[in-house]
Amino acid sequence: MRLLKQVAAAALAAGLGLAGNVAQSADTLQDVMKARGLSQQDLLAAAKTYVPTGKRDEFVVFSSGGQSGQIIVYSVPSMRILKYIGVFTPEPWQGYGYDEDSRAVLRQGRIDGKDITWGDTHHPAISETNGEYDGQFLFINDKANPRLAVIDLRDFETKQIVVNPIFKSEHGGAFVSTNTEYVLEAAQYAAPLENRKFYPLEEFNERYRGGVTYWKFDRKAGRIDPKASFSLELPPYSQDLSDFGKGPSEGWSFTNSFCSERYVGGIEKGRPPYEAGCSAKDTDYLHVVNWKKAAELVAAGKARKINGHDVLTIDVAVKEGVLFLIPEPKSPHGVDVTPDGKFIIVAGKLDTHVSVYSFEKIQAAIKAGKFESKDPYGIPVVAMADALHTQVALGLGPLHTQFDSKACLAYTSMYVDSQVAKWNFCEGKVVDKLSVHYNIGHLMTMEGDSVKPAGKYLVALNKLAIDRFVPVGPLHPQNHQLIDISGDRMQLLYDMPLPLGEPHYAVAIAASKLKPAVRYKVGTNSRTDAAHPGATRAGEEKIVRKGNKVEVFATLIRSHITPETIETEIGDEVTIHLTNLERAQDETHGFTVSTYNVHASVEPGKTVSVKFKADKEGVYPYYCTEFCSALHLEMQGYLLVKPKGWKPTKTALAAQNYTETDYKATLKKIVDTQAVIDQVVAYITSVNYKDFPEVVAMVEDAFDQLGKTKDAKAKHEAAAGKKDWEQANLWAEQVWQYQVKTADLGLRAKTFLEQNGAKKVK
Amino acid sequence: MRLLKQVAAAALAAGLGLAGNVAQSADTLQDVMKARGLSQQDLLAAAKTYVPTGKRDEFVVFSSGGQSGQIIVYSVPSMRILKYIGVFTPEPWQGYGYDEDSRAVLRQGRIDGKDITWGDTHHPAISETNGEYDGQFLFINDKANPRLAVIDLRDFETKQIVVNPIFKSEHGGAFVSTNTEYVLEAAQYAAPLENRKFYPLEEFNERYRGGVTYWKFDRKAGRIDPKASFSLELPPYSQDLSDFGKGPSEGWSFTNSFCSERYVGGIEKGRPPYEAGCSAKDTDYLHVVNWKKAAELVAAGKARKINGHDVLTIDVAVKEGVLFLIPEPKSPHGVDVTPDGKFIIVAGKLDTHVSVYSFEKIQAAIKAGKFESKDPYGIPVVAMADALHTQVALGLGPLHTQFDSKACLAYTSMYVDSQVAKWNFCEGKVVDKLSVHYNIGHLMTMEGDSVKPAGKYLVALNKLAIDRFVPVGPLHPQNHQLIDISGDRMQLLYDMPLPLGEPHYAVAIAASKLKPAVRYKVGTNSRTDAAHPGATRAGEEKIVRKGNKVEVFATLIRSHITPETIETEIGDEVTIHLTNLERAQDETHGFTVSTYNVHASVEPGKTVSVKFKADKEGVYPYYCTEFCSALHLEMQGYLLVKPKGWKPTKTALAAQNYTETDYKATLKKIVDTQAVIDQVVAYITSVNYKDFPEVVAMVEDAFDQLGKTKDAKAKHEAAAGKKDWEQANLWAEQVWQYQVKTADLGLRAKTFLEQNGAKKVK
Repeated sequence: MRLLKQVAAAALAAGLGLAGNVAQSADTLQDVMKARGLSQQDLLAAAKTYVPTGKRDEFVVFSSGGQSGQIIVYSVPSMRILKYIGVFTPEPWQGYGYDEDSRAVLRQGRIDGKDITWGDTHHPAISETNGEYDGQFLFINDKANPRLAVIDLRDFETKQIVVNPIFKSEHGGAFVSTNTEYVLEAAQYAAPLENRKFYPLEEFNERYRGGVTYWKFDRKAGRIDPKASFSLELPPYSQDLSDFGKGPSEGWSFTNSFCSERYVGGIEKGRPPYEAGCSAKDTDYLHVVNWKKAAELVAAGKARKINGHDVLTIDVAVKEGVLFLIPEPKSPHGVDVTPDGKFIIVAGKLDTHVSVYSFEKIQAAIKAGKFESKDPYGIPVVAMADALHTQVALGLGPLHTQFDSKACLAYTSMYVDSQVAKWNFCEGKVVDKLSVHYNIGHLMTMEGDSVKPAGKYLVALNKLAIDRFVPVGPLHPQNHQLIDISGDRMQLLYDMPLPLGEPHYAVAIAASKLKPAVRYKVGTNSRTDAAHPGATRAGEEKIVRKGNKVEVFATLIRSHITPETIETEIGDEVTIHLTNLERAQDETHGFTVSTYNVHASVEPGKTVSVKFKADKEGVYPYYCTEFCSALHLEMQGYLLVKPKGWKPTKTALAAQNYTETDYKATLKKIVDTQAVIDQVVAYITSVNYKDFPEVVAMVEDAFDQLGKTKDAKAKHEAAAGKKDWEQANLWAEQVWQYQVKTADLGLRAKTFLEQNGAKKVK
Repeated sequence: MRLLKQVAAAALAAGLGLAGNVAQSADTLQDVMKARGLSQQDLLAAAKTYVPTGKRDEFVVFSSGGQSGQIIVYSVPSMRILKYIGVFTPEPWQGYGYDEDSRAVLRQGRIDGKDITWGDTHHPAISETNGEYDGQFLFINDKANPRLAVIDLRDFETKQIVVNPIFKSEHGGAFVSTNTEYVLEAAQYAAPLENRKFYPLEEFNERYRGGVTYWKFDRKAGRIDPKASFSLELPPYSQDLSDFGKGPSEGWSFTNSFCSERYVGGIEKGRPPYEAGCSAKDTDYLHVVNWKKAAELVAAGKARKINGHDVLTIDVAVKEGVLFLIPEPKSPHGVDVTPDGKFIIVAGKLDTHVSVYSFEKIQAAIKAGKFESKDPYGIPVVAMADALHTQVALGLGPLHTQFDSKACLAYTSMYVDSQVAKWNFCEGKVVDKLSVHYNIGHLMTMEGDSVKPAGKYLVALNKLAIDRFVPVGPLHPQNHQLIDISGDRMQLLYDMPLPLGEPHYAVAIAASKLKPAVRYKVGTNSRTDAAHPGATRAGEEKIVRKGNKVEVFATLIRSHITPETIETEIGDEVTIHLTNLERAQDETHGFTVSTYNVHASVEPGKTVSVKFKADKEGVYPYYCTEFCSALHLEMQGYLLVKPKGWKPTKTALAAQNYTETDYKATLKKIVDTQAVIDQVVAYITSVNYKDFPEVVAMVEDAFDQLGKTKDAKAKHEAAAGKKDWEQANLWAEQVWQYQVKTADLGLRAKTFLEQNGAKKVK
């Protein structure tokens, strides 16, 4: 140990390209490890997960937010959370539900004519091409209020919400077919399929139903096409998770169930609770569906309309041979098709085994018409023994399985044991086990349910944290634990608390597959991807009044909102269209009007509208809510709500009384600041800045800002010509404001170049 | 390098208490560093920030969420986000705004009779005792809709929202006096103080005003007392940040301003924008207030009522000698009193200097009546030269200052330079500078604005991230960078993206000072801290109908909701009171009713109510939204909304047809499971488990669950006696369900003991 310490110290002292900071911090690695109580194993885990400033993570994870109604985006291996995407729940930072355009998306999710202002998101799915994640779209379901949302990964915004036409709850979504033709959503708790129709629980077996919905995705439009979508009626078996087939099982889908006992609880009447009656039998049913043929049947007019939606009934499905059942160990959760599409893996939470079904065997039984029985609804049941490839005893509470990049290797979460099992599904043997903290629900490997899993890492989605983090009150964060699966045995690397939401399921994609934009084409409505009717170009800002409707066409750019005054009369309906004229990456502006409960997040190029009724007299400041520049606090304006028929008595604003001396002082300041800019420019152009795209973008933006001085300069010179020192000085000040922004950008670029090893050029 | 690698490998190979996992992962530290491109400096930073599983961070940070309207809680040095606290914005994961009790808190924040469903949170403050953070309460302001919220750090829940009675926007809060007697909130954009009163911009100088509000905090009640609070009228100078004095400056407060030019923009009318006119003069004003005396004046009846609120007018404040101005470099942001209370530090964003004012000098000038002038409102102005201790040229865009544990050392953020400057405010010299990415707004040291800063770490709150993280669309996360300040020079340790919200300001406290609870006293309304009228004990669940009002007194415990059926008629007003009967840490249950837009998060012991109108006929599942146990999906029930006057025709639920054989099989399963439990118990009691409080709690909970088998056992035996195999088997299944929960807890405890070095006992 002493030797290691000396060597480490020597290595540091020798410089090795280190900045003075480190040498002078007088810490050696061993000092730090000792002071912080880190083992060598801890240090290795730290080295495997730490991402230094300026470097990037390798994978991006999309996790459901559960009751937060959102999607959580984080990156691996550093486990840093990058974004919460507003999906079913309004979220003001993104303006989601606080501007008119995103409200239109949320309004698509109304049920029975009413706003639903949250969701219970469960299972995200990334769009696939030939069974591989393509990084274009993301889908997620709402269990509580059966809905499905489409997120575009070009801008990470929610574009569409569709309401399930027949379910009253829905857990088993979203899952996509190998070319994202369909997105699958399965019912959870059985209920009458007809909307707003009551049947008593005594008619549960006859009148309550489950089902699966196949939502047709139109990739070109980037939207689900509800009219081309259909559902399959299923028995009231509490359908659960699902998966689509691939390769040899392409064209089929698989859906679990629990409570196939069809038990109805009633503790209040002295009956044993659902938990007792729903887990009393040893097996539940795996539903096996030939969805390609089902789609053909629907196209051929064999569906029945329920609530205006195409539903293939059980009778037709059985008659046409598209629906089969296979017993599975009781109360299963995940059903997971292996990357090669040959096997379907099911884990029954109340059984110690994981069951590997062979698609080939299932097909052989179906083709041979070899069924052990029919269920009460006439659906043929393939015997478990005829369908099983193997069963492996893993431990208590096996729940969900994901796959390795190495052939035949799978990982299964075990809820009761709080463990992850690594096992071989070809040979049916356990390879390794690792304890997690605590009570793992789902787990996830990188691209782990695609045809080509990427291996390397696994994330355990633990439902409890208990003692893992600094306590933050009775409501704890959950804990996503990162596990290294690159070696023969699993190694726990990192504990990540989830600060908001109760994640259920997650999917991970190589970061290199994501190509999000940094700006919109100017004037884009980001929710429809179309040109926004309120889009406004620089210099064309205006206020249009028609009766009591006031429409404001406004622009935002560092650091002013145009117009800076909006005059209305009480009772006016005010719509403000906001276009962000910036082109620079990350130059988002926000907008709000004091106490009128609107907010917009306006990224570069975006146009978005806010709307409210000016229903109270008075003076209400509006401002940019983003800290967008040094002068962001001055990016302000006033909404004036005047009484009906108000007439002004005073018509001039107070003068500032600037003099020629003030003007000359400002001119001097401009010259001094230009010298600073020139120095920065000289540095930047003295190095190979063109090799750094980030810097090229900053330099471009800096020159944009500097270019704006031209107009302000013309104005101050014209005013000075007329000895209007007030206007002359103020417009000169505006020149300086543009210079400050230019210098800001230049210094940002300079720092970047210095820290990223820019080299001198001639 | 090779030597280091060999030594590291040898150290690993030698074991050093490492588990087999590591040895077999075949990685050496050097392999990992090479593969991941880490420098020695990176490794040191990783070692300084990594917190291994089971260990905890040292400090807890509370950051504003900006437009998200929330508070973000994260821990240092790992920079992991632990919680988002719902404050001004409804948030369904916490049930905030989705249950009746939290709705009551949000309703306190209504303005002009309307709900405001978001906020622009800016500056959190931790309650203080003798100038030190005491970890009891947290305060935060809303800039957009001037309000202030109180969060109790026993449960991290928002308890109160107060609406500012006279402002239309408000930036400069929250700041607390040294014993949290008052919480300060300063106006931002000047407006008429009378609510819903219009005056034109032409009367800006005469009719528009700023101000500061001193909210009286009643620590015993844990609430602000609006009636005992007051404001001070100030000129229309766009007041900004503030700070309270301490030590020698105790009893005084300091508030910045910008746009003391009182400029009114109007680009749309050809006037230069606010940004030009608001930064045209070289100085703005620091407001110096004797708040103790101001409070006495208000108590003595010298205030004027505006909107029913006590306001000390400028005239009275000047006459009574409680209000003074001092010029400060233009467009300042932070005003920060040094830990010893002797100096007030101001940074003007458009000046290169940081200015250190001496409280002693200010007092001397005031006592001597030495003023350079009066402002247009008659407020005496102390000359800058008479108040300054020193000025230090730091760089471009100095903004906010925080303090080190070492005497005289301060850190100032520089927005335009994107740097942090470390400097000595006693001697007036720069010590060190560090570049950050990009454009730092506020910064924060540990307990850095208390009388006893803790040193060690600094966080740079950067407003942009640009290229720092994997891109997630046009809207980027911000970047909080952790900096080691323990050495002579600053060292950048970690980049943390903020996934939701636009944080402005943060405060950090030693984790050891926080003592949050893990459960509530059974039946507590967490928003009022009082007993909840809907609290229900086990066995006392009931449904009470009065006319069309249905009140359900329900309980939640692993894994059933009692009652499991709620029958209503269409049009009924339904209130469901939910009590979580759990005592175990982290055993939160959630509750929702499909499509009725309610959600509750019910932590152990809490009682909370949801309310809705059963306005649509049909069958609506309800369920626990938390993955609370292996059988969480079965924690379900049905809301039945029947048509008016509906009469049943069928009165029996379908039978399950269990036989004596089923019952005997279940009894066998119970015996087998008990054997597993016995094994686990044998292990636990064979080691010193009593030395681990976490395990003691788990064991207690396990025995709670096992204790519940008694009642179910009596029921199945009684049913078996009557040869009612249906009831016998189902109640026996319920015994087994309790066993599964017992085993789950036991295994959790066993894993903990194994991983935390439990020792064999006799």
